[in-house]
Order: sequence, then C-alpha cells, then structure tokens
Amino acid sequence: MSNAIILMNNQLKPQQVEMLTQLAEGYRFVTKADLAEGDFEYVEIMYGWDKSYTEAQRQSFKRLKWIQATSAGVDYLPMDIIQNPQIMISNMSGIHATPIAESVFGYLLATGRQLFTSQLQQRESNWNRPEHGGYFSLKDKVLLVYGTGNIGQEIARIGHNFSMEVIGINTNGRAIEGFDACYATAEADSIVGKADFIVSTLPATANTRHYFAENWFKMLKATALFINVGRGQTVDETALYEALKAKQIGGAYLDVFHEEPLPESSTLWELENLLISPHISGQIEHFQEETFPIFKENLVSYLNEGKLARNIVAKDKGY
Amino acid sequence: MSNAIILMNNQLKPQQVEMLTQLAEGYRFVTKADLAEGDFEYVEIMYGWDKSYTEAQRQSFKRLKWIQATSAGVDYLPMDIIQNPQIMISNMSGIHATPIAESVFGYLLATGRQLFTSQLQQRESNWNRPEHGGYFSLKDKVLLVYGTGNIGQEIARIGHNFSMEVIGINTNGRAIEGFDACYATAEADSIVGKADFIVSTLPATANTRHYFAENWFKMLKATALFINVGRGQTVDETALYEALKAKQIGGAYLDVFHEEPLPESSTLWELENLLISPHISGQIEHFQEETFPIFKENLVSYLNEGKLARNIVAKDKGY
Repeated sequence: MSNAIILMNNQLKPQQVEMLTQLAEGYRFVTKADLAEGDFEYVEIMYGWDKSYTEAQRQSFKRLKWIQATSAGVDYLPMDIIQNPQIMISNMSGIHATPIAESVFGYLLATGRQLFTSQLQQRESNWNRPEHGGYFSLKDKVLLVYGTGNIGQEIARIGHNFSMEVIGINTNGRAIEGFDACYATAEADSIVGKADFIVSTLPATANTRHYFAENWFKMLKATALFINVGRGQTVDETALYEALKAKQIGGAYLDVFHEEPLPESSTLWELENLLISPHISGQIEHFQEETFPIFKENLVSYLNEGKLARNIVAKDKGY
Repeated sequence: MSNAIILMNNQLKPQQVEMLTQLAEGYRFVTKADLAEGDFEYVEIMYGWDKSYTEAQRQSFKRLKWIQATSAGVDYLPMDIIQNPQIMISNMSGIHATPIAESVFGYLLATGRQLFTSQLQQRESNWNRPEHGGYFSLKDKVLLVYGTGNIGQEIARIGHNFSMEVIGINTNGRAIEGFDACYATAEADSIVGKADFIVSTLPATANTRHYFAENWFKMLKATALFINVGRGQTVDETALYEALKAKQIGGAYLDVFHEEPLPESSTLWELENLLISPHISGQIEHFQEETFPIFKENLVSYLNEGKLARNIVAKDKGY
C-alpha cells in the first residue's frame, strides 16, 4: 500500500469520504487533526487549506502536487506554495455566485425599502414613518459591476430582472453577455459618475490593490452606494471612511476587509451609512453538496490523467 | 363661475395643479388647510382622504361624487362614505406592486444572507462568523402568495427569477399567468405545509379577517417565514406572537397591523424573529409622478362622461 495522503483541511461528509476512497485506491484520507508529524512528507493532495501551517511545516509537504481550495479567491495561500511549480491549485469559483448576488441584492433592496432603519427603530418600539424618507426602487437605476466573471454575471442577470441598466468593467472592455455594456478598467473613470450602485467582485492582485481610493470615491454620485464582495485589499479603507463620514457618498456595504476579523478598534464599525458583514456573503446553505462534485471531478481527472479538469487557478493572474 | 370644489387632501405639485386647473374649468382647487366651513357642501371631488373628518363634517359633504384615493386599499374609509351610492371611489392599485415586491425580497434576501444579524453585531463591533449559521438561498424554495393581483403577480415574477417555485392562492383557484399553480382559498390548507415562505397581500374584508390564526400557523413548516404586506386585520396577532415566541415557525415580517401606529406597549416589538416596518412597504420613491397620471385620466373621464376610466373600487368587495 502506498503511503500517499489526501489531507482534508476542510470537512467532508463521511459518505463523501467513502465515495472518494473507492475512487482513489492506495491513498489514505487524513483529517488535519489526525495528521502525524511523519505524515507531512506523504501529503500529495489537499482539500482546502489551513492558514496555521508554519513555514517549516509547509516545507515538509515535499510531495504536495495539488491543492483543491474550497474558496473562490486563493490570495491567502503563501507565496512559497503559489510559486512552487510542482503544485497545481484549483478553486471553487462559481459556487459562490448565487449567495454573493443574493447578498448584494439583499443589501440594496433592504436599504431602498428602509428595512435596516426599521430594524433599529423596532428595538426602540419606535413607529416612525417618514412619508418621503429616502425610499428608492432599483427600477431604472444604473448598476456598475467591477469584474464580469461568474459572480458579476449573476449580479447582472438579477439586476436586469429589477429593470436596472447594468454595466460591467473588466481588464480589456470585452463584451460579456448579460451586461448592457462593458468598459475596460482604464476607461472606468468615464462611467463611474453615472452609477447609482457600484459592486466590486475584484480579486486581490497587485493591479487591484487600493484601486478604490480617494480620487475614485470623489468621482461618485452623492447618493451612490458602494458594495465590496471581492477582496478588502482593493479598497483604501481610510479613504472610504472619510467619504462615508463626510457623506460624500450615500452609503456602503463591506463584506471584506484588509484585516479579518476586522479589529474591534476599527473606526469603520461606527459608521451609520456603512453595513459590515463578517466575510459571509459567499457562505452557502449546503456547502458540502455544492463543493463535492468539483473536488470529485478533479480527483478523477488527476488520478487518470495527472491533470485537473476544471477550476484551475492561473498562478500568474492569481485567480 | 361654479362653486364646485376639488379638495386636495393629499398634496399635488404646483405644476400638476396648474395642469388640472386648465382641464377642469369652473372648479376651484382647494387644499384641506384652506377649506372654509362654508366650502364643505361644494366639495364634489376629493383627491386622497383624511381620517380626521368628523361624522358631522362628512355629512356636510353633500355634493361629494368621487373620491380618488391615493392608496391601494380603501378600508380606512368610513362606512357612511363607502355605502353612499352617490359617491364613486377609485384607488391607486397597481403603483405599489414594485415597492411592495422589493420590500418582500429585501426581507427574504437580507434574512437569508444574515444581513439583519450583521447590522446588530456591527453595533457591538462584533465580528461573529458562523460557518453554518442559518444561511439560506431563495433557489429551489417554495413561495406561497395569498392574493394573485398586481402585487402578487410582481412577487411571483421576481420569485421565478430567483429560481423559486411560486404558488398563488385566490378565491376560486383560477390560473394566473406567472404562477406555477394556483389554489382556491378553500384548498389552501393542503398546500401551506409545503411552503418555505408565505406572503399575504390580502385586503381587509369580512372574509379575510383573522384568516391567519392559530390553526393556520400550526400547519406551517418549522422554518417557514410569514410576511404580511396586505392588511393587519387578516392576522390574529396574538396567535402569531405565540407562534413566534415558541419558535413554532422560523420568523415573520409585518408591515401592517390591527392598530397603526403599533402601540408602544405591544409585545410584538420585542420579538427577535419578527421584523416590523411602519406600514411603508408600498411607499414610493416618486409618489406624485406615479399617482398623477391615474388621477388625471379619471378626472378627464369624469368631466367628459360622468364616470371613471380606471382603478374603480368595487364597493361590495371592498377593493
């Protein structure tokens, strides 16, 4: 029997492990809790990643060939793992499109219908019914989406159903089905001031770092709402704090931050025109059912052909 | 010059009044604030209603022929007004479909994505990120809608876009486009236990009073969410309070109540699995722009033909 190990950093259901065991003859399935010191060098495949591995431990993964990440973005992986040409990386891009789009529209609709305000008033038994109290409909509004991948496309689809105009931003401005128009990132400045709502689904890369900074926020409508369901590193949080504090823009919803958990000392918590959620916009109701088919398909392909079938991360792009 | 008066209980924009003045020669346009005691008997048309009129004042409206209500439901009109055969009543049914449907989906999406919980945690600078914390997607859920009129149809349309199964309930079970199936009210009990979410758009009539009572709540799924954007009189609030307090159902969102404003002493305020909004689900961003065309079209018809063109309330049904 081979000593090769498939290490489960994330949980799989017992019946899922059983199914995979039958596919991967000669491999041992080991959970992180059961991983002995002598096992490290035999780990060949990882399901999920764990941020607690030390550099010394990472160097002990001598035979590691493939990491099936359980997230869409993989920017949390250490550079020595990403840059190691021996290690293939695949992600779960695609499965988060529905929950993230539902998060975006949950925020927009509940804000426009004053449901967040209602919740706060309820806690004070306060029936306050403004006749013209900042209600808005999504109808006829302009929605600008940074990133036209799976998540952006699902947001665009739903946006159209609410009778919005939906514009996409991607690297080269190529047309993407489901968007009324697409612009290149370099042209984005010309269109930003037209948007009622801006959603970023951008990954964390060298090019996107602090893209949303002081000058960018200055171009927005005074009523604009900014939503970040991509990565925290794309936003200059100080600039956003200032724009919100000064009511230079209408409001924002952030699900992702530079530092997570967001430190208790952060001044962002206190802003009344900001909604903070703890990096949950992509959380899935039936996570293991959604991710399993992707891991299984890749595992079969890996075992039979030595390569992955889908969701392969382009290491040079980082997504 | 005739003394006939068009009384504006609700506000119209100056340019709207000017436009109507040119159409309605010989009529005086009077706001409620400017209405003198001697004017009452000359009021022939009312735009909107005002609940503060006493019975004696109502009896002084001797020439009143038409009330153009600015709401969809008109159950707040006194019986002596409704039953007076000389008075025609029209409503604004239709214009509230978009905001009410947006309110319903704002509640469902923000609940499923834990955004209300996030808002409360934010106030305590609390980053609490449950891995499997009651998230749900609308996808593949069953949505049951009581009332298959304008509002119900708009809810069904959006529900389908979120990949839900949408079932309608109406008086006789007639099929309505946009619903996967429709059942008669008498058959509703057979389907209620299948629903993940139930939305009521029912008006207040003798038949709907306390329809949603103890036995009805007992038929629901333990995770079901109940939404009332119709009228408060349809719900036995004590029974709903008990069902929510005992966590017999998942949660509820009420926009309408028996008594409005909801009294500060109500025990409903304190329920954590209930969202209360102060009868605002139908509030419109550009109210005067939406309602004006309906009033204008009816006014032209009234002046030329002595009858109304649209949105006529069937007095026997009450809507």
